[in-house]
Amino acid sequence: MIDQNLLPFTFSIKKCSTWKETCTAIRTMNVRGAGAIGAAAGFAMAQAFMTGDNPAFAREQIRSARPTARDLFYAVDKVFNAGIISVAHALATALEIAVENQEAGRKIGSFGETMLKDGARVLTHCNAGWLAFVDYGSALSPIYQAHRKGKKIFVYVDETRPRSQGARLTAWELMNEEIEHLIVPDNAGAYLMSQGKVDMVITGADRIAANGDTANKIGTFEKAIVANHFGVPFYVAAPCSTFDFDTLLGKDIEIEQRNADEVNYQTGPDVEGKLHTIRVSNPGSDALNPAFDVTPAGLISGFITEKGIVAPGRIRKIL
Amino acid sequence: MIDQNLLPFTFSIKKCSTWKETCTAIRTMNVRGAGAIGAAAGFAMAQAFMTGDNPAFAREQIRSARPTARDLFYAVDKVFNAGIISVAHALATALEIAVENQEAGRKIGSFGETMLKDGARVLTHCNAGWLAFVDYGSALSPIYQAHRKGKKIFVYVDETRPRSQGARLTAWELMNEEIEHLIVPDNAGAYLMSQGKVDMVITGADRIAANGDTANKIGTFEKAIVANHFGVPFYVAAPCSTFDFDTLLGKDIEIEQRNADEVNYQTGPDVEGKLHTIRVSNPGSDALNPAFDVTPAGLISGFITEKGIVAPGRIRKIL
Repeated sequence: MIDQNLLPFTFSIKKCSTWKETCTAIRTMNVRGAGAIGAAAGFAMAQAFMTGDNPAFAREQIRSARPTARDLFYAVDKVFNAGIISVAHALATALEIAVENQEAGRKIGSFGETMLKDGARVLTHCNAGWLAFVDYGSALSPIYQAHRKGKKIFVYVDETRPRSQGARLTAWELMNEEIEHLIVPDNAGAYLMSQGKVDMVITGADRIAANGDTANKIGTFEKAIVANHFGVPFYVAAPCSTFDFDTLLGKDIEIEQRNADEVNYQTGPDVEGKLHTIRVSNPGSDALNPAFDVTPAGLISGFITEKGIVAPGRIRKIL
Repeated sequence: MIDQNLLPFTFSIKKCSTWKETCTAIRTMNVRGAGAIGAAAGFAMAQAFMTGDNPAFAREQIRSARPTARDLFYAVDKVFNAGIISVAHALATALEIAVENQEAGRKIGSFGETMLKDGARVLTHCNAGWLAFVDYGSALSPIYQAHRKGKKIFVYVDETRPRSQGARLTAWELMNEEIEHLIVPDNAGAYLMSQGKVDMVITGADRIAANGDTANKIGTFEKAIVANHFGVPFYVAAPCSTFDFDTLLGKDIEIEQRNADEVNYQTGPDVEGKLHTIRVSNPGSDALNPAFDVTPAGLISGFITEKGIVAPGRIRKIL
């Protein structure tokens, strides 16, 4: 896997030889993003079968690595059930999930790009590009496909504090794709929309409840409220594996609370490229760090999925 | 003046011996916050008279140090007009503005604290405490007075990217005042309000137009929209010197665009206390850095001023 904790300053491939290493990579966010977490979790479960470790124990450990992303549970359970038949079956299923994820991203792009006009200006939050998936991505996939078709697309990239996945990962992806973009502080959304500078907001999702309520990176809910205030369309791009029809309402989704250090400290290179971890807040104060929030279905214009663009009220029928 | 660029890591008093030094201190934000900028600008103008420099030239230079804060123009013009009479008159006027600013902060606190119940949980954005004024502050003054009267107040402190005045300055002030608080990423506002954890939002202001539209730190507009969505009262605390009845509408207020480096870099101490400036975003990407936004009067529950709490529609009558 690409070690996402080192990006954008260092590109490095991290090898995880055991299910425990893969599980730790998920927990410490070397691999992150709903689809990539799912694929990694599937492989971790397969690794447990391959090395003959107790699969039930491994399953619980992998399931508890991150609590919010639906794709993780989907993949672990699917590979676990396959492993009961045979180890080969477990591995084949993990590979199948990865390919399915890649293919879903491609189709999300194809459906989504039809909504993007030449010259469109899109705001996105966090990172839901190819880093967050096996390939293509969810929220960024329509942008990539539109760009490849020759449309000029401009992207406002929310910094996405505290882990700054927008400023670090989405900006890096867009640079690699040669798509014009600007990083903006999370605070600038209403300012940009009030000036008519945003045609559409597209974000990814970590889990979508049966009623369409959507858990995604903290701040997504704010952008949805603000977009709604200005009449800017707000779309969520996600594969079917992110929809959790066993979770009826958004309020039933567990929100991961992460360490306050992520808010209080930042790591990055100085002018000579040497990495430092510095305090960015008052040393005597504590911080709150909810990793996700839940955007109510009523604020979502539609879901961009591999089966098409679906209104929140129709997800149970179509998906 | 307290050098606010060094806080919260170092407390240091910066002496400005000439109007040019004071002017540079305003531009580089050694002194910041509407009221503190106003007082400093008044003294800078008085310094120009005291050293016999061309007052008209000094006036234009000081006026151009920061474009948005109304208090700056108010103070410079008042001291300039006084200086036409005599140098002593200029200095007396600058002192008068500073005392007036301090007294306004105290009264804002007295009026504002009546709205805060014992146990109230307030969210604030940026820093509008005693650092931002000569003393007391605007948005934080009601909290300080409520606390001194024995009420238990809890404050959610927006980090306020990109310059993090919340995490660095407001958190430091609240720690010094021994008021319970937590720093929160700017992205967490909707999450907190959706959980019923915020009873009121109070922010300061940099300039208030005749129709009540309010320029304040970037992100204030977002918080106002979100507070409105959840029915959370949204108050703006500001002295009369921040109201600019010559500016009819919010859209007439010039928004300062600051350097992208403030978004792309952060400075702070490592674990040994040594300061580093690090890159916190993709090195190949550019950033946008609007310093303020304008919240429409319709989203503001009321203005907390030294003349009382005033509804947006009544500011021209009362103030």
